[in-house]
Amino acid sequence: MIPDALSRLVHLLARLPGVGEKTAQRFALHLIGDGGDLAPRLGAELVSLMERIRPCVRCGNIAEVDDSGHAECGVCRDPRRDGKLLCVVARVQDLLAVERSGAMRGRYFVLGRLLSPLDGVGPDELPLGELSRRIDQDGVEELIVATPPSVDGEATALLLAREFGTRVRLSRIASGVPHGGDLEFADMITLGRAIDGRRNID
Amino acid sequence: MIPDALSRLVHLLARLPGVGEKTAQRFALHLIGDGGDLAPRLGAELVSLMERIRPCVRCGNIAEVDDSGHAECGVCRDPRRDGKLLCVVARVQDLLAVERSGAMRGRYFVLGRLLSPLDGVGPDELPLGELSRRIDQDGVEELIVATPPSVDGEATALLLAREFGTRVRLSRIASGVPHGGDLEFADMITLGRAIDGRRNID
Repeated sequence: MIPDALSRLVHLLARLPGVGEKTAQRFALHLIGDGGDLAPRLGAELVSLMERIRPCVRCGNIAEVDDSGHAECGVCRDPRRDGKLLCVVARVQDLLAVERSGAMRGRYFVLGRLLSPLDGVGPDELPLGELSRRIDQDGVEELIVATPPSVDGEATALLLAREFGTRVRLSRIASGVPHGGDLEFADMITLGRAIDGRRNID
Repeated sequence: MIPDALSRLVHLLARLPGVGEKTAQRFALHLIGDGGDLAPRLGAELVSLMERIRPCVRCGNIAEVDDSGHAECGVCRDPRRDGKLLCVVARVQDLLAVERSGAMRGRYFVLGRLLSPLDGVGPDELPLGELSRRIDQDGVEELIVATPPSVDGEATALLLAREFGTRVRLSRIASGVPHGGDLEFADMITLGRAIDGRRNID
């Protein structure tokens, strides 16, 4: 009943994060029916995507591939960045969010995943060797651990502290009531952290 | 900060139905980072999509394009289907849903849109001429109006009744409490329709 080419397309679209069979079918029918030139244009972009964008060889951030096939991201190429300050994040999305804040003047290291004993992700699954080499090469003095304030994120932060705490200064991003947030609606743990992490008003 | 190729990709992905800038970015990073061979395979499918799948020339259902460039869907090609019974639906998705039920032994006609005076969609925007020709060509005797039981769907059903009521028998799919549904949680209108549309128990 459904053409093969459509089944294949639906199956591939369903591999996108958070997309199930139903949504994939909706995307596919939109691409066929009223997407205009969307299908061929999107197709062309995707076909050449891997040749043009790859993870940065130094930090894992997305980077444009240059003529010699080398991929180094804008942050790693920027000479004004402080190489002695390294911000460790779990995912590229987190790196982009920190960049948007404009508060980071150092460089980054994308772990790719978090320590998660319950899901079977142990220390060996994390790129600790790479991070260690990066610390040596760049002469990193401070490691800012910007993993999320979740169980896995905290476990990863503790692991990094244990691994690198003797070689560099380690810091953890603050956790507390978000800017514009309401104390009344903050959860217990967030409020507890906000109080534990209180700072003197100078 | 973000490579051009990525911005273009995010922009195109955000044209998928129900996908905003954030979700599009998530899709894009997945396609770059950990999608494996997803990007090139999906790209190849999309590039050739329009050459292989097009709306059926007779009913608007999705159809595989044959060697002569002709697109006629499986339902329209099936000689066992009753050509005198024509089911009118709003979208291809609805056609696929009716097909899955296995209850339809006739053929289909996809309107593509519903009458919606508030959104400026008048009778001229609907393919009434095409539907009229289809009724003549196939000698249609009954038109089953399977537009959704919404304001726009009902308005469209009324329009079809006014246009074709003198030439063919018109019927409307039943509206009521869904199978397995709970009367306690059915809304007033659904329950009202279920009672209005009651049938004798033989």
